[in-house]
Amino acid sequence: MKLASLSDYLLLRINRPPSKAGPGKGRAAAGRESTATKSSRTGKTAAAVPVNRQIYQLIREAILAHTLPAGMQLPSSRDLATELGTSRNTVTYAYEQLLAEGYLESRTGAGTFVADTAPDQMPDAVERKEPLTDPSGKSELSARGALLTRQAGVGERQWGAFMPGVPDVTCVPYKIWGRLQNKHWRRSNSDLLTYGPGAGYAGLREQIAEYLRVARSVNCTASQVLITTGIHQSIDIVVKLLGEHGDTAWVEDPCYWGTRSVLNSLGIQSVPIAVDQEGMRMRLANLRRPPRFICTTPSHQYPLGMVMSLSRRRMLLEYAATHKVWIIEDDYDSEFRYGGRPLASLQGMDTQDRVLYMGTFSKIMFPGLRIGFLVVPESLSRAFATGIAELYRNGQVFLQATLADFMAEGHFASHIRKMRVLYAERLQLLQQAINRHFGEKMTITGGEAGLHLVLGLPQECDDVLICEQALAAGIVVRPLSRYYMHARGARRGLLLGYASVPNDEIARAFDKLAAVIKPHLA
Amino acid sequence: MKLASLSDYLLLRINRPPSKAGPGKGRAAAGRESTATKSSRTGKTAAAVPVNRQIYQLIREAILAHTLPAGMQLPSSRDLATELGTSRNTVTYAYEQLLAEGYLESRTGAGTFVADTAPDQMPDAVERKEPLTDPSGKSELSARGALLTRQAGVGERQWGAFMPGVPDVTCVPYKIWGRLQNKHWRRSNSDLLTYGPGAGYAGLREQIAEYLRVARSVNCTASQVLITTGIHQSIDIVVKLLGEHGDTAWVEDPCYWGTRSVLNSLGIQSVPIAVDQEGMRMRLANLRRPPRFICTTPSHQYPLGMVMSLSRRRMLLEYAATHKVWIIEDDYDSEFRYGGRPLASLQGMDTQDRVLYMGTFSKIMFPGLRIGFLVVPESLSRAFATGIAELYRNGQVFLQATLADFMAEGHFASHIRKMRVLYAERLQLLQQAINRHFGEKMTITGGEAGLHLVLGLPQECDDVLICEQALAAGIVVRPLSRYYMHARGARRGLLLGYASVPNDEIARAFDKLAAVIKPHLA
Repeated sequence: MKLASLSDYLLLRINRPPSKAGPGKGRAAAGRESTATKSSRTGKTAAAVPVNRQIYQLIREAILAHTLPAGMQLPSSRDLATELGTSRNTVTYAYEQLLAEGYLESRTGAGTFVADTAPDQMPDAVERKEPLTDPSGKSELSARGALLTRQAGVGERQWGAFMPGVPDVTCVPYKIWGRLQNKHWRRSNSDLLTYGPGAGYAGLREQIAEYLRVARSVNCTASQVLITTGIHQSIDIVVKLLGEHGDTAWVEDPCYWGTRSVLNSLGIQSVPIAVDQEGMRMRLANLRRPPRFICTTPSHQYPLGMVMSLSRRRMLLEYAATHKVWIIEDDYDSEFRYGGRPLASLQGMDTQDRVLYMGTFSKIMFPGLRIGFLVVPESLSRAFATGIAELYRNGQVFLQATLADFMAEGHFASHIRKMRVLYAERLQLLQQAINRHFGEKMTITGGEAGLHLVLGLPQECDDVLICEQALAAGIVVRPLSRYYMHARGARRGLLLGYASVPNDEIARAFDKLAAVIKPHLA
Repeated sequence: MKLASLSDYLLLRINRPPSKAGPGKGRAAAGRESTATKSSRTGKTAAAVPVNRQIYQLIREAILAHTLPAGMQLPSSRDLATELGTSRNTVTYAYEQLLAEGYLESRTGAGTFVADTAPDQMPDAVERKEPLTDPSGKSELSARGALLTRQAGVGERQWGAFMPGVPDVTCVPYKIWGRLQNKHWRRSNSDLLTYGPGAGYAGLREQIAEYLRVARSVNCTASQVLITTGIHQSIDIVVKLLGEHGDTAWVEDPCYWGTRSVLNSLGIQSVPIAVDQEGMRMRLANLRRPPRFICTTPSHQYPLGMVMSLSRRRMLLEYAATHKVWIIEDDYDSEFRYGGRPLASLQGMDTQDRVLYMGTFSKIMFPGLRIGFLVVPESLSRAFATGIAELYRNGQVFLQATLADFMAEGHFASHIRKMRVLYAERLQLLQQAINRHFGEKMTITGGEAGLHLVLGLPQECDDVLICEQALAAGIVVRPLSRYYMHARGARRGLLLGYASVPNDEIARAFDKLAAVIKPHLA
C-alpha cells in the first residue's frame, strides 16, 4: 500500500472533532477520554474520539483485515502527518501505541513495518469437542445454564403492589443511616475500604450475635457469625464447603425458588418434601435415604407461612445427628410476627452442631443492602471464614460498619418495632380488601408473620396466567404453583406482598387485582 | 413438679435486672432488646435480659431437658407470679410465648400443661450414609471444602507494605464520592434500595461500555455489560451458565489463586498452561484436547506481567472459534500502564463472539466497593442478566448509581490519571530501593504496569518461608511459587505491591524486607 493510498484510507474515515479537541498529544490524550465520556453523552461519540486514537484504530483494523500486509513499510510519521494535515505528534502517538501492541515493528534505520502476526501453527488432529449441551442449539448455554434460565423464578419487576418479600424501603431512617455512613467516610479508614476479613466486620458480628441470642434464642458467640451478601451466598458457601457435586438436599415443597436454583447450580439434587400444618412431612422413603442437606424455614415456612411443630423439630435434629446431615435453617423474615414475639430458632434447640442458621437484613433494612449472616458451629467457623474470603473476596466493610453502629445505637430494634406496627396495619387492610371482594370463600394463609400472605385459589385456576394479566394491569403478584417443584399437584394461589404498599393504596391496588381474578372464578 | 419446686427452680436462676428494667409487659419487651444490646456492651448481658424473657427461657430449657415432663400441669400465672414476687404480666408473657412455640398447651377450663413434644417415629432401616469425605476426619468438610481451605491463597492481612493488588484507598476522592452518595440517599429512591436488575444499574452499564470502548478497544454496547461484585462472581456465573461440572479450563501457570479456587469449587478441572514472554504457551498435547474455558490475562499476565503477543492472541481466537471454547479475559488492572496507554483487549479482536471480558473497579477505586463487570456477546446478555439475578440477587444499586455519576462527571478518568502518576513514582522508588540493596543481581519483572512487581529469587530460596519471616517483621509479601499449580518447578520470587505504600515509607519498608531476604541468599 502506497503512502497516498494509506492517507486516502485514513482521510476518508477520520472523523474530525470540534476544533477544541484538535489533534492530540500522546500524554494529554488520556485527558480527552473524559471529554469523550462527557461530550459523547450528548450523542457525539465519534466526534469525541481524538484523531490520534482514530488513526490508531483505523490502521489496526487494516492490519487485522490484512489490507496492510505483514512486512509492509509504513510512511514516516512526518510524511503521513503532512498528508493528513495533522500534527506529527498525532501520528507518532498512533504509531507508538501500535508498536506497543505489536501491530508494528520498527527496524532501526529502516523505518516502521507491519509486524507478522500470523497465528502460531495449529495442530492437525484434535479431539472431537462434545456437542453443545443445550438441545435447542439456539443458545450456547450449558445444560445447567439452560435449566437455570428456563426455570428462573426471579421477576422482571422488583417494586410495587403486591411485590412479595420486599419491605418498605422508603421507611428506612436514611438520615440516620446517612449520618453514620458519612462518619466512616470522613475517616476514609483503609480497613473499611479494602478487602474485608473473610468472616466480616467484627463489630457487626458482635451486634448480630447479641441480637440473635436475645431475639431468636440462637445459641452462638460472635466467632460463629459470618457475614455474607445474603441467603444465596450463605447457601453457596455451605454447599461448597460441606457438600459434593451429586449430593442430595431435602427442600420444602413449595419453597423459595432461589434456594432450589442455587442448589441446582452447584449440582445438588433437590428432593421435594411436602409440608403440612406442622411443617416438613418426611415419608419413610425419604428417611431411609439421608440427604447431605435439609433446607428448611421452621419459623415461617416459605411461602405458606406455617410454623414447624416441636415434635418435627426434635425429629429433624435427632435424624440429622444420627445420620450426619446438615440442616440449613433459613430464618428470613420472622422478626415480623404480629401475634407476639418472634419464635425461637431450630438452631437454639440443637445440641449436636448440625444446624447452619442463616438470615438477612434485606427484609428488616432494605434488600439493596445485601448483607446477610450465617451462624455455624464453632468447629467450622474458621474454615468458613477462609472459604468466604477465598471464593467471594467480600468487602464493603464500610457498609457493615455503618450497620453495626445502626444496631449498637438502638436504631435497628426501634426500626423493627416501627415496621412491625406498620406492616400489621397493611396486613389488616389487605385482609379487609380481600374479604370485601371475596367474603370468606377465599382462604388466606401465612398472615401471622412476614411480609406477604397467600391467597388460595381453586385448583382449576391458572395462577400463572392470572399473574401475567395482573402484571399487565400494573400489579405484581407471584403464582403459588411456581414455588412447587412440579406443576402437577401444586396448589394454586397468589403471593401478595403488602409490606411495601402504602396504606392508602392497598385497597385500590387490590380492586385492580380482584378485577383480574374474578373472571377466573366464574 | 410442684408449684413450689418450679418457683424454686426459677427463683434460683432468675437474674434480677437493675430496677429501671423491671418486670416486662409483653408488647414493650422488644423495647428492652435494645437496652439489652446497649447495656450488655458494657458486659452486663445477663442482667439486661428482661425477667419475662428469663422465665420463658428457663421453663423452655426445663421442658427440653424433660425436667418438666409432658402432660404436667403448670401453676396458674397468678400463683407463679406471687411466688416469684413479680407482676402477673411477666409470667403471662412467658406462658404466651411458650404456648406460641408449642412447648405448652392450654386446655380450656383445665389450665396450662407441658405439651407432648416427643419426636415422630424414626424409621428402622436406614441406608448407610457414606463416610465423611474429609480423610483427616478432624473436620466435617467435604473433599471440595477441605481442598479449598487447605489451598486457600487469600492472606491474613489485606493492607500494608507490600500487599500486592491493593490500590491506595486513602487517595479515593471520598468527599466527592460522599457528596454523590448522599445525593442518592436524600432521595431514598426505592429503585436504588431494593433488589437490583440482574444486569445492574443501566446508567453504570452505559458509562462502563463507553469507557471500555475508548480505553480498551472493547467492542460492546451497554446491553452487553453486566454488573457483578467482581472477578470472582464474574467467573462463577460464566461457569454456571456455560460450563458443566467436570469440564476443563486452561489456566495460566502461574495465575491468580482466586481464579483456580472458584473453578475448583465448581468442579472445573484446571489445566496449567506455562507462560513465556508471549503469554500462554500451549503444547500440542493441550491443543489436541480443547477445554471448555481458557482463562487468560492477555494485557498484563498475572502475576508475571508480560503482554500476550498478537500471534498468540490470534491463535487463541481462531482456536476458540474452531472448537467452541470460551475465552475468559481477565483485564484486572491494565489501566495502570506506565509506558503509555493501556493495551487493546483481546475481546476487541474477537469476531466470533468467543470472548467473555471481565474487569473490576477494585484496583481503580477501592477493593471494598465490590463492583466489577462482565462483557458478554449480545446473544448471551439476556441469559446472563437472568442468571445473575437468580443466583445472587445483587443489589446495592445506590452504590452503582454513585459510581455512574462519579464516571459521568469525569472524576473517574482524572482519578486514574492521578493514580497512574503516583504509582509510577512508587514503582520507581521501589526499584531504586531494590537496586540499592541488591544491585542488578536481582531480576525485576512486571514493572511496566499494574500495582505490583515480581522480585525474582534464586531457585534454591524458600520464598514461602521468606514471606512468613517478612510477615513477622511486619511486611506483607506473597511467594511467587504459590501462584503455580505445583510447587515442583515453580519459579521462586516475591510479589511486591507498591501502590498502597506511601512514597516516604517504601525505602524503609524495603530495608526491613531486605534484612529478611539477605540471609537466604548467602
